[in-house]
Amino acid sequence: MDIVIVGGVAGGMSAATRLRRLDENAGITVVERGEHVSFANCGLPYHLSGVIPERDSLLLQTPQGLAARFGIEVLVRHEARSIDTAGHKLEIVDLTTGESRVVGYDALVLSPGARAVVPPVPGAERALTLRDVHDLDVLGEQVARARTAVVIGGGFVGLEVAENLLAAGLQVAIVEAAPQVMTPIDVEMVAPVHRRLREHGIDLSLGTTVAEITADAVVTSDGRSLPADLVVAAIGVRPDVDLAREAGLRIGARGGIVVDETLRTSAPDVWAVGDAVEKLDALDGAATLVPLANTANLQGRLVADAIVGRPTAQRPVRGTAIVSVLGLQVGSTGWNERRLRAAGKPYRAIHTHPSSHAGYYPGAASMSLKLLVDPTNDEILGAQAVGEDGVDKRIDVVATAMAGGLTASDLADLELAYAPQFGSAKDPVNMLGWVDRAADEGLVATVQWHELADVLAAGATLVDVRTPDEHTRARIPGSVLLPLDELRSRLDELPAGPLVVHCAVGMRGYLAARVLAQHGRDVRNLDGGYRTWLDGTRTDDSTDDSTHRRTAS
Amino acid sequence: MDIVIVGGVAGGMSAATRLRRLDENAGITVVERGEHVSFANCGLPYHLSGVIPERDSLLLQTPQGLAARFGIEVLVRHEARSIDTAGHKLEIVDLTTGESRVVGYDALVLSPGARAVVPPVPGAERALTLRDVHDLDVLGEQVARARTAVVIGGGFVGLEVAENLLAAGLQVAIVEAAPQVMTPIDVEMVAPVHRRLREHGIDLSLGTTVAEITADAVVTSDGRSLPADLVVAAIGVRPDVDLAREAGLRIGARGGIVVDETLRTSAPDVWAVGDAVEKLDALDGAATLVPLANTANLQGRLVADAIVGRPTAQRPVRGTAIVSVLGLQVGSTGWNERRLRAAGKPYRAIHTHPSSHAGYYPGAASMSLKLLVDPTNDEILGAQAVGEDGVDKRIDVVATAMAGGLTASDLADLELAYAPQFGSAKDPVNMLGWVDRAADEGLVATVQWHELADVLAAGATLVDVRTPDEHTRARIPGSVLLPLDELRSRLDELPAGPLVVHCAVGMRGYLAARVLAQHGRDVRNLDGGYRTWLDGTRTDDSTDDSTHRRTAS
Repeated sequence: MDIVIVGGVAGGMSAATRLRRLDENAGITVVERGEHVSFANCGLPYHLSGVIPERDSLLLQTPQGLAARFGIEVLVRHEARSIDTAGHKLEIVDLTTGESRVVGYDALVLSPGARAVVPPVPGAERALTLRDVHDLDVLGEQVARARTAVVIGGGFVGLEVAENLLAAGLQVAIVEAAPQVMTPIDVEMVAPVHRRLREHGIDLSLGTTVAEITADAVVTSDGRSLPADLVVAAIGVRPDVDLAREAGLRIGARGGIVVDETLRTSAPDVWAVGDAVEKLDALDGAATLVPLANTANLQGRLVADAIVGRPTAQRPVRGTAIVSVLGLQVGSTGWNERRLRAAGKPYRAIHTHPSSHAGYYPGAASMSLKLLVDPTNDEILGAQAVGEDGVDKRIDVVATAMAGGLTASDLADLELAYAPQFGSAKDPVNMLGWVDRAADEGLVATVQWHELADVLAAGATLVDVRTPDEHTRARIPGSVLLPLDELRSRLDELPAGPLVVHCAVGMRGYLAARVLAQHGRDVRNLDGGYRTWLDGTRTDDSTDDSTHRRTAS
Repeated sequence: MDIVIVGGVAGGMSAATRLRRLDENAGITVVERGEHVSFANCGLPYHLSGVIPERDSLLLQTPQGLAARFGIEVLVRHEARSIDTAGHKLEIVDLTTGESRVVGYDALVLSPGARAVVPPVPGAERALTLRDVHDLDVLGEQVARARTAVVIGGGFVGLEVAENLLAAGLQVAIVEAAPQVMTPIDVEMVAPVHRRLREHGIDLSLGTTVAEITADAVVTSDGRSLPADLVVAAIGVRPDVDLAREAGLRIGARGGIVVDETLRTSAPDVWAVGDAVEKLDALDGAATLVPLANTANLQGRLVADAIVGRPTAQRPVRGTAIVSVLGLQVGSTGWNERRLRAAGKPYRAIHTHPSSHAGYYPGAASMSLKLLVDPTNDEILGAQAVGEDGVDKRIDVVATAMAGGLTASDLADLELAYAPQFGSAKDPVNMLGWVDRAADEGLVATVQWHELADVLAAGATLVDVRTPDEHTRARIPGSVLLPLDELRSRLDELPAGPLVVHCAVGMRGYLAARVLAQHGRDVRNLDGGYRTWLDGTRTDDSTDDSTHRRTAS
């Protein structure tokens, strides 16, 4: 059997090596347009700053090594130009010599990946992108000579590039068209990221597009001119489907190659994997684009199984992802609130602000967690986390719980590894489960940060149950102070009518709500407390006051 | 409703506060023998060294604070002496005044915890234990004056105490009766812990008991005299069931209070939680003792729900636990191999040695993972992990997968958060799933480190597929070298008969096994490679050679 694989990174190379393990006798050829196969795309930004000092450490495999170990023929700087699906043939061109030839295949795997999108503005040809080692070399050369940089796009890659340009000593600006960076994260969860970027001196423009790229600047839609010796476009990627489209393969509404359960395209014996294909969303089963390395690698393995006839099935995706931004860890899995609202799906949102580990053990850092739950059946719909430590663990645990079909309440019962360096006897994930269970079982009603203004306008009284000191330092306008520990003795001071209680992070508010509800009051707790409200409502993104960061209970 | 709770830490205090949240009108009294309630038991060892500098930071709640916030009456230095279960009455004694009184209850919760076991040897009265703040004060005083210490027992607490005594500047010896420390961890997995202890200058005696404690030394069963200004007994704990037994409550075969699904004891309206009660093992449903804070806290909450009539059910336990030992993280969940073998249960063991995160990103540390799987249905039976980073995350993910009923193969499909700081595109947990799937689907047969000698004695040839350099540096006796990349061209050099291949950690061995199997050879891969074999077989626990620690593939 002759198998040709177009694209020698992530999905393509996973497919090639897995195929060899499954079939010692297959002919396996990998056609890669670039100079390198199997490089570490996710590490590229970190060589710009020298965090990853050796460029060669990003080159995980060489064609020679793959030939020796796997008997795989790797053709770098070769481009697939056309596919004759009926004839099971492929035209490839040697980019060095310009020579063209035709190779036959019994099975063809397309793993072309995705291309960076460059904004269609005057001067766009000066914008660099960062998708492969060649891009890295070009960008690295400019970094060495540049003093200022503008990164267009505040997604995961844009933020990684910005951080590393900053670390390389450049003055950095980010221009993002959306009102926030990192759109998989909801707006109130991303506020700490905005602050962090600005605290480190990055000029962050939100809700702003690029009007023009000049010889030494980026001109924004609001007329500012940002100095830019260097311009990086990181506004996103789109599936690289030119070859597939010209070969008549079915392309989906999302712009990716359509594949079936076993990663087969619409053409016989042609398969496709990775960033170029449309995946199935785990929540609604719809087609979705998730250009992430973990899924690409998994699909590479699965397609190998499918080709040799082993039972396999594509896994629906949740888009579990994480990024490190200037010391902040930001992770998510599943759907966010914005998407749920846009789709009209019912949901319950939960915000908590636990410590990464036991507060009495040194190094505990505060984090913000958000859980999204289907109120009709307690299914976990999504989770987000932001903090300096332990974010990856909590996202992975929730993602695994989702994969196992555990409900949000079930999170309370998870038996997680506890010692004070690693978590709490009631881990933040357990606590999410308890908070959800309280809501699910009707122990408490909550108000979300974005609902508060309307609830107060409708006549509710907002009661701050924190201490007088906390109230004096910073408060929600219109709130009245009644510290939790005095609540029972001063119940009659509260005005009639509906109440909303709040504390710093939601825990004392929950206790107060339980007291008041049992005394017959109509009461709701402000979910996530003052902290979530502040992150959601303030628009200036000013640097934190010192009290805000501390873990409060 | 009047509720009395005996024991004011972990489970007891969780029950008390949850009860208040559920019932604003209940009378809630907590009777605590010690001077403190709700202290951080898991943090106690770290105050000995000053890692946790402030003793007060270990005191999470005060009686005054609990009264103000929760309306809970807390009686410290009060001891419950007897229970009149028929009369629903309890006799308590004020340990300060000696006065006794009788209090009635509608519901009684026993959360007495466990007592440290002291070895019954001459001089044992000099051995200190570390269970509460009073113990900490006594121990701390002695530490200030001591130069040498012997810790009896190499369990989780013993190792934490030893580490902190060492950090406090003492010369430390550990005497452990078993042939290894940390018996929840299998012997080959614990080898790095033995090395780490010795590298830090701790005198570790395994398979050794204490014969006598003299005025300035601990005399061991092999006749050595270990200098000991200070002696700490950490050989384990046993449920504190005196009160329960005298009240006629049913005590189980494991020595703990017997409770039903809703944590009810054999006496009417008497409940029990925490270290004193027997739990149900998640794997075989048998009674088990798991004295861990996470389970105690959870039971405290559940018993509150049960008492007020909310639906609840005790969760079976897996004993998920972790400890930090001199920079090594050691975690486990479920059953270990020793226990599975003793119980005659079928299992498949898998060892891997992945990096904590992408090898090209700075700070990646090698870890050892072990997965135990039921070969009849691919159920995950247990997992263990040892390393310098990322151990807690992997144990938590596997524990969550077990809770969700995922199979070992399902681990391959988990969509985990990936960026190079946090893991790999194929996370170590995913890789466990792939290795399991290869075994489950018959792609490879493996030999365990402890089976190798027998397999070779029966006539198999051991083939080292590493590089000549690696083979020269250190090798398994009797192995012949045939580097993986030369395997296909030198197949006919291999002798006839069954083969065992091995590499450093198992991955190249797997590739070699696939090549050989497809060429018709009877071949097995040494699971976990040279590294697992070495950790399992060497008895001198000598310090690592430098090559051994490096991550190899």
